Amino acid sequence: MPTRSNALSSVIPLPGLPEWARFREAALQADRYALDLHCLKAAGLQVDLSGQRHSPELQQAGEDLLAARSFDKARQQLLGGGIVNCTEQRAAWHSALRAPAPMAEVAKERERMNEFVRVADSERRWRNIIHIGIGGSDWGVRLSLAAFGYRHSWRNVRFLANIDGHALEHALSGMDPHDTLVVIASKSFTTTETLKNGQRALEWLQAAGVANPYEQIVAITARPATASHWGVPQKQIFQFWDWVGGRFSLWSAVSLTTALAVSSDVVAGMLSGAAAMDQHFQEAPIASNIPVQMALAGVVNRSVLGYGSLNISPYDFRLGNLVPYIQQLDMESLGKSVTTSGQPVGVATGAAVWGLAGTDAQHTFYQWLHQGSDGAPVDFIVCQQADHKQPEHHNLLLANCLAQREALMRGKTYEQALAECEGQGEQAEQLAHHRVHSGGRPNSLIVLPRLSPFSLGALLALYEHKIFVQALIWGINPFDQWGVEYGKVLANGILQELASDSNDINHHDVSTQHWIKIFKN
Amino acid sequence: MPTRSNALSSVIPLPGLPEWARFREAALQADRYALDLHCLKAAGLQVDLSGQRHSPELQQAGEDLLAARSFDKARQQLLGGGIVNCTEQRAAWHSALRAPAPMAEVAKERERMNEFVRVADSERRWRNIIHIGIGGSDWGVRLSLAAFGYRHSWRNVRFLANIDGHALEHALSGMDPHDTLVVIASKSFTTTETLKNGQRALEWLQAAGVANPYEQIVAITARPATASHWGVPQKQIFQFWDWVGGRFSLWSAVSLTTALAVSSDVVAGMLSGAAAMDQHFQEAPIASNIPVQMALAGVVNRSVLGYGSLNISPYDFRLGNLVPYIQQLDMESLGKSVTTSGQPVGVATGAAVWGLAGTDAQHTFYQWLHQGSDGAPVDFIVCQQADHKQPEHHNLLLANCLAQREALMRGKTYEQALAECEGQGEQAEQLAHHRVHSGGRPNSLIVLPRLSPFSLGALLALYEHKIFVQALIWGINPFDQWGVEYGKVLANGILQELASDSNDINHHDVSTQHWIKIFKN
Repeated sequence: MPTRSNALSSVIPLPGLPEWARFREAALQADRYALDLHCLKAAGLQVDLSGQRHSPELQQAGEDLLAARSFDKARQQLLGGGIVNCTEQRAAWHSALRAPAPMAEVAKERERMNEFVRVADSERRWRNIIHIGIGGSDWGVRLSLAAFGYRHSWRNVRFLANIDGHALEHALSGMDPHDTLVVIASKSFTTTETLKNGQRALEWLQAAGVANPYEQIVAITARPATASHWGVPQKQIFQFWDWVGGRFSLWSAVSLTTALAVSSDVVAGMLSGAAAMDQHFQEAPIASNIPVQMALAGVVNRSVLGYGSLNISPYDFRLGNLVPYIQQLDMESLGKSVTTSGQPVGVATGAAVWGLAGTDAQHTFYQWLHQGSDGAPVDFIVCQQADHKQPEHHNLLLANCLAQREALMRGKTYEQALAECEGQGEQAEQLAHHRVHSGGRPNSLIVLPRLSPFSLGALLALYEHKIFVQALIWGINPFDQWGVEYGKVLANGILQELASDSNDINHHDVSTQHWIKIFKN
Repeated sequence: MPTRSNALSSVIPLPGLPEWARFREAALQADRYALDLHCLKAAGLQVDLSGQRHSPELQQAGEDLLAARSFDKARQQLLGGGIVNCTEQRAAWHSALRAPAPMAEVAKERERMNEFVRVADSERRWRNIIHIGIGGSDWGVRLSLAAFGYRHSWRNVRFLANIDGHALEHALSGMDPHDTLVVIASKSFTTTETLKNGQRALEWLQAAGVANPYEQIVAITARPATASHWGVPQKQIFQFWDWVGGRFSLWSAVSLTTALAVSSDVVAGMLSGAAAMDQHFQEAPIASNIPVQMALAGVVNRSVLGYGSLNISPYDFRLGNLVPYIQQLDMESLGKSVTTSGQPVGVATGAAVWGLAGTDAQHTFYQWLHQGSDGAPVDFIVCQQADHKQPEHHNLLLANCLAQREALMRGKTYEQALAECEGQGEQAEQLAHHRVHSGGRPNSLIVLPRLSPFSLGALLALYEHKIFVQALIWGINPFDQWGVEYGKVLANGILQELASDSNDINHHDVSTQHWIKIFKN
């Protein structure tokens, strides 16, 4: 059980740490990209950090910086279920969900979930599934289905997250209510979007005259009593725990939909892969610890070089949903400006995370990455082996990935561009300026042997731990989300104002007042 | 026909313009958000710029800056089909595609397209469509289908863009080749992804033994002879023209798939809406010209206040694909660092564009927007009227949109946060720091009366012209994409190296060499 501890709650902001000054200096002195290969391996993944700033001095400065942040102790707390979320006094013990020999309560829920799937499969039930959840209760399932269900499956899964009624229509339209399972995933079982949409789905079942609508509803939550009160039968409530953050709930029974759509084996494989990465993170020395090395590179790019965003480019069609998944994981964790003790961090923290699957990305925003004024570090992710029988396509995919990466690293000089423009006559010199690429853009290349559940699980755990280490260095709490709460409170107020006859809205700014009046009519 | 002209090709970089210095100063002096309402209307859209820096001085400085850039003349050239793409000596005359009384060749292709749809509809043919295109030939169709086909239609449309063979499997799996139309959209009809995927689709039709596979293929291209040579029957080739950029090809016959899936009326409505915005852009004075005012705000946010990214938050589930659409349109246009005459621009240009439909976005990255160290300007987009029968859901959607916007503008002070934390005992002061929101984040609010084809068309044309004006101010060419070309050349080289026995790869960096060797095996 989680032990009370507060090691994270008092930290010195980076600008006050001599280790930070040395790290910063070493990063500025390091080569723009490594002249020697800098490859690491763990859990089947190969990660090439040659495209990040690198030098022996920077490596040493990184180790010193981590020591100043009591990295060993913090990691031990995280993986041991200590209170690492200091503002909410909670553990963030998602690693316990994927432990090879899990705690009894974890093992029990997993077995209940697997049994539910076995019964459903043997009875060929639930041709249709509506998965209702938002944020952390949504993206993980979407990701795993896109990764392993891209050839489609006999079960038709629709996702319902947004409060927008059009999303509801999209989810329900054309579905057969008599063979539809509604899965409601919400940690608190109070999330407005999820509960409203769940209510509408229930009404839809009722309106269709199904015999017992509640028998077609499953809840996954850390508040089983609330779900039970709502009407979900006890046997169809799957539990997770307060010490699992919503953005890590993929590792809980939230993956029931994944298991129904693409098999329990996929879920088991992802858990194993994540566990393998947990072990690597726990045991590997800093110099070969992939999450740690990626985190150090992330801090260099963000807080030393000043890159405001991080691009994720999975060169794999099946990993398109990795982008919003990591976006949620990273930006909700690292979008903070004060340290755990409440002081300004003093350097820039989490970047804007965005991206798209390659090669689509090349036709969408690679122009900007190459020749825009800022550029962004890129995480390239690619599978060595494909799961299809079109070798030419896979070679093209790999070649494009390597080529874009090389272009971003090496760039193209004016002299090279001018040589290309020969034959353009007197305009050559001017046109050549338009073909120059500055180069030196940082990147990581993550190579999966193939897109197995195991390697996807390892990849996700890699990002989780990377984010944890970045937060540790910055001295922020990656496990709370106070910025999400404020908007909810304001929205409740405006909702009441939209619905009421009163015009007592002067506490808003003039523009908000204006729109409340218009939207009321 | 386009006339030769080069008004854009010689510009003074902004730091050398006195008008820029005054604009910059006025922006820095302006209020963080307007204390008076700043709302503009055009083509049915209401755009509230109260959340952007605003002052009479800034307004005047903006007009002067535009005059220094010969805005009137540039706009006239754009809308009149002049050579505005100076590095490629081409017009960018997409507005001609949506003119109320279009040129004969435009009208003829549009009528051919409509006739194709009429025949297909009357014969109930093409239950399945595979739309093959990438970048500009892909996102526009995806956007309009998500906007108007969210309740699903009797035609089943799959998109195939990525070279990844898994994308091919996703597109073909479970489809009936005997009732499938393959639509191949490529301006040059040489785009690698599109042609390879088109070839695979053809082979799939052939393997299924359909009577005449080529009769099931349509091409949309500016190179009809190339498509004909490839094998597409003349009657199934729809043309657009050299003076239509790929990222504007939505307005051409590329929308055939849209017409088949959600009707020709949708396409016609979008064209009308865009034409209405063209007219507004052409005629409205600068102070009430929406694309111009949004462009000025964009330049302030990017080049004065230093925001590195632009968030697009459509509070409408149906507009989720607006994000990659604008991403492509904006980043490929504005991801440049040299002026048309080849000098460094001297200020930061195009931002990273990213986002997600609200309310999903709130559970994904709004934490970062509120409390991250950088934040980003946000374009909120919302429909006053919904097309569903769930008023409570629509009110919730509107309330959330207004609430998030208000929170971003006004923020929350330490004193307010402290008041909230009363009752938390001795930790209150520390916890309150975690609840502070800095506020002052810039935003625009775009309100559509409802999501009609007309209003979507107007919205897209608004962004097009906004981007054009930003490019004009920065002095860059928004219509070329040299950064896309370089990677293609490198990819061809690596592709050959992956396929050959030779190990002559020493011209690459060590990391690229390493991966070529590994991927060969």
